[in-house]
Amino acid sequence: MRRFLTDRARRAVAASLRGATRPAAPSPAPAAALSRPSPSAPSAMAAYMARAMSTSAAGTPPVSLDTINPKVLEFKYAVRGEIVTHAQNLEQELHKNPESLPFDEILYCNIGNPHSLGQQPVTFFREVLSLCDHPALLDKSETHALYSSDAIERAWQILEKIPGRATGAYSHSQGVKGLRDEIAAGIAARDGFHASGDNIFLTDGASPAVHMMMQLLIRSEKDGILCPLPQYPLYSASIALHGGSFVPYFLDEETGWGLEVDELKKQVDEARSKGITVRALVVINPGNPTGQVLAEENQKKIVEFCKNEGLVLLADEVYQENIYVEDKQFHSFKKIARSMGYTDDDLPLVSFQSVSKGYYGECGKRGGYMEVTGFNADVREQIYKVASVNLCSNISGQILSSLIMNPPKVSISCMELFQSGIVMAPI
Amino acid sequence: MRRFLTDRARRAVAASLRGATRPAAPSPAPAAALSRPSPSAPSAMAAYMARAMSTSAAGTPPVSLDTINPKVLEFKYAVRGEIVTHAQNLEQELHKNPESLPFDEILYCNIGNPHSLGQQPVTFFREVLSLCDHPALLDKSETHALYSSDAIERAWQILEKIPGRATGAYSHSQGVKGLRDEIAAGIAARDGFHASGDNIFLTDGASPAVHMMMQLLIRSEKDGILCPLPQYPLYSASIALHGGSFVPYFLDEETGWGLEVDELKKQVDEARSKGITVRALVVINPGNPTGQVLAEENQKKIVEFCKNEGLVLLADEVYQENIYVEDKQFHSFKKIARSMGYTDDDLPLVSFQSVSKGYYGECGKRGGYMEVTGFNADVREQIYKVASVNLCSNISGQILSSLIMNPPKVSISCMELFQSGIVMAPI
Repeated sequence: MRRFLTDRARRAVAASLRGATRPAAPSPAPAAALSRPSPSAPSAMAAYMARAMSTSAAGTPPVSLDTINPKVLEFKYAVRGEIVTHAQNLEQELHKNPESLPFDEILYCNIGNPHSLGQQPVTFFREVLSLCDHPALLDKSETHALYSSDAIERAWQILEKIPGRATGAYSHSQGVKGLRDEIAAGIAARDGFHASGDNIFLTDGASPAVHMMMQLLIRSEKDGILCPLPQYPLYSASIALHGGSFVPYFLDEETGWGLEVDELKKQVDEARSKGITVRALVVINPGNPTGQVLAEENQKKIVEFCKNEGLVLLADEVYQENIYVEDKQFHSFKKIARSMGYTDDDLPLVSFQSVSKGYYGECGKRGGYMEVTGFNADVREQIYKVASVNLCSNISGQILSSLIMNPPKVSISCMELFQSGIVMAPI
Repeated sequence: MRRFLTDRARRAVAASLRGATRPAAPSPAPAAALSRPSPSAPSAMAAYMARAMSTSAAGTPPVSLDTINPKVLEFKYAVRGEIVTHAQNLEQELHKNPESLPFDEILYCNIGNPHSLGQQPVTFFREVLSLCDHPALLDKSETHALYSSDAIERAWQILEKIPGRATGAYSHSQGVKGLRDEIAAGIAARDGFHASGDNIFLTDGASPAVHMMMQLLIRSEKDGILCPLPQYPLYSASIALHGGSFVPYFLDEETGWGLEVDELKKQVDEARSKGITVRALVVINPGNPTGQVLAEENQKKIVEFCKNEGLVLLADEVYQENIYVEDKQFHSFKKIARSMGYTDDDLPLVSFQSVSKGYYGECGKRGGYMEVTGFNADVREQIYKVASVNLCSNISGQILSSLIMNPPKVSISCMELFQSGIVMAPI
């Protein structure tokens, strides 16, 4: 069954790749005209006819499916797509008539969203966020009756890092410097190699960070990004939205969804033979949706491959805390690259992290960061410019990002409560 | 002086418009090659020579200014640009040697960021956010000693609107339905016309909402967006990033930065004569940075103009609470359109709102929404798809958006405290 699904995915991607050779942004037609799909696409033709009829009946609207950005029309985002919409409709039906369906509840497992399924937040994290949202509490003695002393202390420490203690102000476009430094210290402690707050870009979850890198790297449909299959659909969606080409590589189900460098090489060569400039390799480790954890030796080969082929390594490492087997361990790609002797001058490498995954699963907070290393200073400036166009990410998400990278230590008094929270978390 | 600045702005824009006729996304050159700027751009030529020299000295990096997306390279975002960077450098200098400069502090006024200049948050809003961040507080009797009863009540009401009371879960891609309904009720109370929560898209501030609409509407550099000059640079940046053409219209300084429909018509005709399809009109009302407040009659003409010309009306209404003269009043464009008898079928209209402006100025919370009306159902689905690609906006920002559109009423007990907060706010 799983093999069948993989084959089906291969065919679907092969079909979408054939489609990718069409120009991504044709010259716009006048608002009244309808661009004709090619006769080889019968379902598109049916949709075109239906649209043509509805448009002529209702006059000529300023915006129709035929006059929007075709990249928007073409991209797919299945985790919030048709199946979810169908489930929402069923839920409304259940609400109106509870007897109408052979079940009485819908559990949404379309996306990792543990709090929606009953996971409780980690108390320490929420205490700190609550205090930072209302810093006036820190001056009141009654606060000690409601909040742990560790959370009060941490909230003070965090507010001291924020200029003017103003959690209501826009921060630096990369995020509050003091929080970035704290995250960098957490990365250094995890990896055993130096990390700098100057390389951290705090973002509203990992997704906007991925979009920023795609926006930077993709110039046209002739630029390709290597992505795993099975994949998390953010990547195919973001590549399509930015007008690039999705270059798939297949994880090997037989070897526990292994990532083979031979397969990467084969796909890069094939893409290049079609005139595609491969810009970057996306690796999701631990895997999503496949759950594999890459071995150190395998990671070294991947780093070497990127170095040899001149690729940016985009390391989706948001599941670094979600490993549920004893003999596996997470190693960040930066740690691997540094352990091989590669420095900041050798390899452009971006690591994505998020507060939405791990034992915390704080999806609604929209916190995350990317650690950007190995780019020239002038390219770094451009990444900063892209980050600055939305001014900054939300400060609560920034604070929570610093907390997950520097959680309470064993010595402090709230540890017992914190650990009981963790035990509840990875459901 | 001001006239001089306006003239200078006109010339700068005319120059950038000439530049906009270049193809926005040329075919990528091989990584090692450097695309040659035209000889008519001496400063670009100097930069090109400098880059060519640095690249050949350091080998061929996988990513350089010559191989990134040229749209990223070209766009400008002055509010976080060179002057700010210079100020940050001066600040570091001051920090190292306080006597080195003839001043001892830098106040950043590059962007509206009142909390960074000492404005205090509105207590009621922060109390509610603090409680929603740590809902366990609501079960404790000590909470009443720290929080106002109104805030406790409102926090309960909000949590009841959030499925599972889970402020840590991703919400619906448009935002929590109950919060959207509350915002819609606030809009209806403000305008005297119906509003629907189904038309609200909650976003991480107004900027991402603007990007979403640009992404939807812009197909190529042949699509133009009418924008005011002077403008807030988000618009020129977003249009450039999405590969469209910035079509300026000039506000008339003589009439208090008035917006004349004749000027709009002239600019649309001129753009069309150059082969540009004008897709939308951006109106910033109240104006940014000009501060003008449009009169009802003027707004009616603008609505009529959009209707006649087949344009989407993008109404930046984030400064709706920032009016400091007695004889002016804010009217939303939706209210104006409805008062003219136009329904949802007649005019595509998007209104942007943000928690970062108004008397609250909560920039760091990254909350905001757009109210999307007048689009076909199938186009609406595409807007939903674009919204869904980042999953949802941050829940604290969503909650705060509902609070600013439904602030405390006069009858409730915290009103005095709330009003004292407001009096402090608009500095």
